[in-house]
Amino acid sequence: MKLNIALLAGDGIGPEVIDQAVKVSDAVAAKFGHDITWKPALTGAAAIDAVGEPYPDETHEICKSSDAVLFGAIGDPKYDNDPSAPVRPEQGLLKMRKALGLFANVRPTFVFPSLLDKSPLKKERIEGTDLVFLRELTGGIYFGEKGRRDNRNTAYDNCVYTKDEVTRLARKGFELAMTRSKRLCCVDKANVLETSRLWRETVQGLEAEYPEVTVSYEFVDAVAMRLVQWPSDYDVLITENLFGDILTDEASVISGSMGLMPSASLGSDIGLFEPIHGSYPQAAGKNIANPMATVLSAAMMFENFGLAEEGKAIRDAVNKALNEGVVTEDLSDGAKAYGTKEVGDWLASNI
Amino acid sequence: MKLNIALLAGDGIGPEVIDQAVKVSDAVAAKFGHDITWKPALTGAAAIDAVGEPYPDETHEICKSSDAVLFGAIGDPKYDNDPSAPVRPEQGLLKMRKALGLFANVRPTFVFPSLLDKSPLKKERIEGTDLVFLRELTGGIYFGEKGRRDNRNTAYDNCVYTKDEVTRLARKGFELAMTRSKRLCCVDKANVLETSRLWRETVQGLEAEYPEVTVSYEFVDAVAMRLVQWPSDYDVLITENLFGDILTDEASVISGSMGLMPSASLGSDIGLFEPIHGSYPQAAGKNIANPMATVLSAAMMFENFGLAEEGKAIRDAVNKALNEGVVTEDLSDGAKAYGTKEVGDWLASNI
Ligand SMILES: CC(C)[C@H](C(=O)O)[C@@H](O)C(=O)O
Ligand SMILES: CC(C)[C@H](C(=O)O)[C@@H](O)C(=O)O
Repeated sequence: MKLNIALLAGDGIGPEVIDQAVKVSDAVAAKFGHDITWKPALTGAAAIDAVGEPYPDETHEICKSSDAVLFGAIGDPKYDNDPSAPVRPEQGLLKMRKALGLFANVRPTFVFPSLLDKSPLKKERIEGTDLVFLRELTGGIYFGEKGRRDNRNTAYDNCVYTKDEVTRLARKGFELAMTRSKRLCCVDKANVLETSRLWRETVQGLEAEYPEVTVSYEFVDAVAMRLVQWPSDYDVLITENLFGDILTDEASVISGSMGLMPSASLGSDIGLFEPIHGSYPQAAGKNIANPMATVLSAAMMFENFGLAEEGKAIRDAVNKALNEGVVTEDLSDGAKAYGTKEVGDWLASNI
Repeated sequence: MKLNIALLAGDGIGPEVIDQAVKVSDAVAAKFGHDITWKPALTGAAAIDAVGEPYPDETHEICKSSDAVLFGAIGDPKYDNDPSAPVRPEQGLLKMRKALGLFANVRPTFVFPSLLDKSPLKKERIEGTDLVFLRELTGGIYFGEKGRRDNRNTAYDNCVYTKDEVTRLARKGFELAMTRSKRLCCVDKANVLETSRLWRETVQGLEAEYPEVTVSYEFVDAVAMRLVQWPSDYDVLITENLFGDILTDEASVISGSMGLMPSASLGSDIGLFEPIHGSYPQAAGKNIANPMATVLSAAMMFENFGLAEEGKAIRDAVNKALNEGVVTEDLSDGAKAYGTKEVGDWLASNI
């Protein structure tokens, strides 16, 4: 397969972890006979510094003409605590999601048997956890009209959803559930919000088309509880943008291995693949960041192209590295820690 | 002191746990020379069944003319999974909050040393946890305009906050922080929402009036993570209505003792005190529900009247019961379990 991949390294540790994912992907391509062309482009604070914009048009053009986007991390402390700054890295992220039509954020949460004690949760609570959130990513209160009135003393944010937006996300959820244990949970706040009632009735309306899938409906506050009580009760969860933002971050704590968790954002054509962790500026340039989440995001990318074996080759190499202790300092538990680059080299040579 | 207390037992286990709180409060009143008049009133599904309304005018009159409200629980399975039913118990709750001006929901989360292993979180993560959420309760997306358009295919919910609403809640947060470790965390999503930016700038504007309080600002997704990673990092947290709904429920899991967690909702005059747990219909009428959260809610009620010793007498009795194993089956760990009524009797006789 010939693949053009846009490479958005971003800020902080982004460039370092992206380098390892490229190395491992190239090893996969060599082994399976694919041909990857990488197309680097600016994003985040790095892009603001260079051209005054977190998601420049040129970057968008590169993404649009690629088959997928591999993304590092964005965020720079100099933009924090100034939410009203005229240009912020986050705006680039939101603009990119909308412009690329990335309406479904896929966030798996699973445990690595060898790392169960990294979790803040007790072992018996998390064993067997293997769930996936599908978060709606281009609608809701993130993109509704917002502003001020009454001399700036009143602020408002509108949350809006259309039936079509809910339907396309929900269908992805049903389809994903069909490839897994056929259980789907719709997370909403239908006892209070009209948008949630639209979500619930739309999902209910699709149930007949997927008779094998068992659907449950839970309120977001109940899920926020149960997720840390009995995470293994869940399989596929679908939810709106803001609930998804909160719950996927909460869920990322379960495994205790945030440095290992990949994600995908999917839409019409071009998928975006990125680790769930941030830009971790304190670690930038030190060759200590864990590259595995980004490497596993590359595995999701191959899988999304229908290249299941290629994805598995990456996952196997990561599992082997974990079992053999080829890990960065966040996972080394006082034993010898490898550098970011050394973990990448090891993974590439074990493909 | 002469006290008139409205008694809203509600649904499910509500009446049983309320009975114990009344018994214990009467014991406190007898010991400290107070005179309590209890005024029962209908609410929840019980009120819908009786008069077709979850928060009848008569109940409101009784609450209005009382010094405080002691509340059990509401909710009945026959109203679940039908979020579009014309009358629902939750509507009564929202109407009551608004009508009584209960704009601040106070939810403490603390651990009982003898119950640390009940938590799904590891002991070393939760030791020393003692935090309080102040959730804004009468504004935001709960009360903004909501509806449908485009032939019901588009739904919307408006989130609105005024500077005054934020100010009064934030002041309560600063004042509470002053009585504790002087740390306040404002939880928002100021990188995306205009209402959150109003929250953040309003709280920033109050900082100078409370120079001793150290204020931090964190995004709601980050708090959803850190709360289950390092809960003891937090002290007082303030947040808007919907974030508070999600995060206080998440926080309730930390202690592993939801059956012990009280809450208060405060506004101008009349406070409302209730356990955080629900109506637990499966347990209703079986004399197995844990009454301690409701009893501790009565302790918060006394404390809110400035009767600190009375509150402490209740807390001491509860701690003693926990240490001596006078507990209901949720906490008895296979040892002898006491009934709801027996725990209440024991607590009353140990005041
Ligand atoms: C940075 C922020 C705008 C973003 C979001 O809220 O979507 C982030 O938290 C995420 O989840 O990707
Ligand atoms: C029942 C529901 C409307 C309510 C809320 O969302 O406020 C409940 O979850 C709560 O937290 O008291």
